[in-house]
Amino acid sequence: MNIRFYNARILTMANGFDMVEGELWVQGNRIIYVGEQTQKTKEVKWGRKIDCGKNLIMPGFKNAHTHSAMTFLRSFADDLPLLDWLNNQVFPMEAKLKGDFVCCLAKIAIMEYLTSGITSNFDMYFFTENVAKASIESGYRTVFCGHINNFQGDLKLLEEYYLKLNSINDLIGYRLGFHAEYTCSPKLLEGVAGLAHKYKTPVFTHNSESGSEVRQCVKRYRMTPTKFLDSLGMFDYGGGGFHCVHMTDEDLNIFKSKDLFVVTNPASNCKLASGIAPIKKMMDMGINLAIGTDGPASNNCLDMFREMFLTAALQKILEKDASAVDANEVLYMATVGGAKAMGLAECDTLAKGKLADLIMIDLHQPNMQPINNITKNLVYSGSKQNVMLTMVNGKILYENNHFYIGANPEEIYAKANEIINKMKK
Amino acid sequence: MNIRFYNARILTMANGFDMVEGELWVQGNRIIYVGEQTQKTKEVKWGRKIDCGKNLIMPGFKNAHTHSAMTFLRSFADDLPLLDWLNNQVFPMEAKLKGDFVCCLAKIAIMEYLTSGITSNFDMYFFTENVAKASIESGYRTVFCGHINNFQGDLKLLEEYYLKLNSINDLIGYRLGFHAEYTCSPKLLEGVAGLAHKYKTPVFTHNSESGSEVRQCVKRYRMTPTKFLDSLGMFDYGGGGFHCVHMTDEDLNIFKSKDLFVVTNPASNCKLASGIAPIKKMMDMGINLAIGTDGPASNNCLDMFREMFLTAALQKILEKDASAVDANEVLYMATVGGAKAMGLAECDTLAKGKLADLIMIDLHQPNMQPINNITKNLVYSGSKQNVMLTMVNGKILYENNHFYIGANPEEIYAKANEIINKMKK
Repeated sequence: MNIRFYNARILTMANGFDMVEGELWVQGNRIIYVGEQTQKTKEVKWGRKIDCGKNLIMPGFKNAHTHSAMTFLRSFADDLPLLDWLNNQVFPMEAKLKGDFVCCLAKIAIMEYLTSGITSNFDMYFFTENVAKASIESGYRTVFCGHINNFQGDLKLLEEYYLKLNSINDLIGYRLGFHAEYTCSPKLLEGVAGLAHKYKTPVFTHNSESGSEVRQCVKRYRMTPTKFLDSLGMFDYGGGGFHCVHMTDEDLNIFKSKDLFVVTNPASNCKLASGIAPIKKMMDMGINLAIGTDGPASNNCLDMFREMFLTAALQKILEKDASAVDANEVLYMATVGGAKAMGLAECDTLAKGKLADLIMIDLHQPNMQPINNITKNLVYSGSKQNVMLTMVNGKILYENNHFYIGANPEEIYAKANEIINKMKK
Repeated sequence: MNIRFYNARILTMANGFDMVEGELWVQGNRIIYVGEQTQKTKEVKWGRKIDCGKNLIMPGFKNAHTHSAMTFLRSFADDLPLLDWLNNQVFPMEAKLKGDFVCCLAKIAIMEYLTSGITSNFDMYFFTENVAKASIESGYRTVFCGHINNFQGDLKLLEEYYLKLNSINDLIGYRLGFHAEYTCSPKLLEGVAGLAHKYKTPVFTHNSESGSEVRQCVKRYRMTPTKFLDSLGMFDYGGGGFHCVHMTDEDLNIFKSKDLFVVTNPASNCKLASGIAPIKKMMDMGINLAIGTDGPASNNCLDMFREMFLTAALQKILEKDASAVDANEVLYMATVGGAKAMGLAECDTLAKGKLADLIMIDLHQPNMQPINNITKNLVYSGSKQNVMLTMVNGKILYENNHFYIGANPEEIYAKANEIINKMKK
């Protein structure tokens, strides 16, 4: 269906933070026009014309690190010491998971992404095909990251997923990855690095999330996780790390020289007491940055507005400087930065020929008034409540609090509650 | 109008964090029944019956520190060093304010409070009567805190406001207060303490927000702000401090022994790089706690969900312990704690005879599913998007994204933008 958005403020992100006042046209799954109002609109047969009422159209947010299916552990066991939480709550529950559970549980996360204007996620979890099923059925865009470790999956599966999931559906992508240094044997890690070389492709992983993880790695290999993994040739074709809270200068230099991505997860890093990542320092070094919510078990909510506020605000605390980190840079990380990390080169900005992954933000809400600075206000004051519409691949999946994902939300909730009640027994 | 809420989950906050499944009845501005479904409903003539669809009814949040009218400075000058921001942006703009500007600007804040389920605010600003006008016209509940300092107001005005605003309208209250130790002469502070003794009443003020404020006070008086103010007899009838980030053990002991309130403002303390208040330590000492958003110039949004998440999450960072601060305690601070700080003894919990200041939270949203632990989930995953209805003093002021505040939101926005554009010149 061809959709014409008109009477809009448009933040394309293709031209700094400048706004266009005008129109955006979508044909199929592509943007065919962004610019001022034009007479040529009559040449197109419109399926729908949307008067944006001077509200904001912008690229959808990219959630560059998450574990969608972990909704079953949301608010299941909060406020516990980290190891108690992991060993006595998370792992025993995960052992009870089944593939069809995962598909339903991931759909709840997809719905929440839509409410927060997130148009794609970089997802890491087992039962990967079931998560992919949830995305495809919902019309949602997901790039997966390999999750293998000593206990789940193996190199064969990783290669198989890499080949299969990169060609299964336009909405699905797959990048090489593994759970973390501390859950993988050197042999397994060498194998992953081998695949990176074989396919000349990037690798992503959890990296230096906690201080103890780094200390244990140094004890094991006399190297930090970043240095150790790099010594295996893991990042010779790019990639990056999730979290990256506890990084040495040498680690950061490796990230810079290899053009790697840091995906920061500030809410999760707070809630699990992991620490504050040195984002300001990374920005000053010119390291690529993106933002992720992490999974609902640790965050607990999947909200890019919260993450953007935290990304900026925590740096001000860390640096003891209210001017540390400009909100506009954070907005870039949450949109273009994420798209680059996930390899979604066609979903980064709003321009002719790009895929139509976009959102409409309600500026006629008190938290957006008066209108002083829209982009900074998005970061510091924006909320899920401002998301009027979320479009993925040219289709409106969420509009005015309604979901258009090919399933009834109430049925998804009912099934999810049934699953969690069964698992609690 | 008598309103019957039925088919609800009800968190009364009167009995720990237990839920009632049933009904809540409002007659005039009071709650007349909370409990299980009953036949007696037929005895009351209902103006409206609301099927809550198993959603949550709970006490409204209390925003225990804010400067509502500062919406004009929202996203006006972010990401600047603190003193540059204050001296070159905030103060010159404030000098251009007029009373009728303030009434309009405060209404935007009131609207935002309603979207976040905040049913009353503890407000500190000049042109106090104009802010009171905004609240009364909107049907909103505001307790004011005296704001006087060496540059604005005087003891006569403080006493006049105290007497007048405590009797002007059921929705309005006033507590003695002054801006801060560092903006008031010793003589002025002695005068405020004198009024506290004259009326046997609590006093509130900004306290120990930044490290430099404390250092300067110690230099001036060889005492911290808390100790110096207490030495004047300021807190002999209770009261408390906003922010309280940089507190000595002696300061905390004074707060404990005088039964004072700490009102924490975590988002503002991050954004202005003030630091993280030692809330866990205060909780362990049994100090009274409440939560405020601070004003929109520094926060920038007025969202109790963000503040609740930050209150818990920042303590986990500060204490390096994921189990530090239980989310339920934070929920208590944001509701009952705030009511106690503001002297709203009739707005703290949902019980027969209490004032009907309450909200309805949509549990049929993905961020609230599956239902594992509703109260913890409110703190960690709740959002403005979940607020379906906000009732103040028995009247619904916000429901399903519509405002019922006796004025057209678009007209308020237009006027506010006109004001800000005029002031920018």
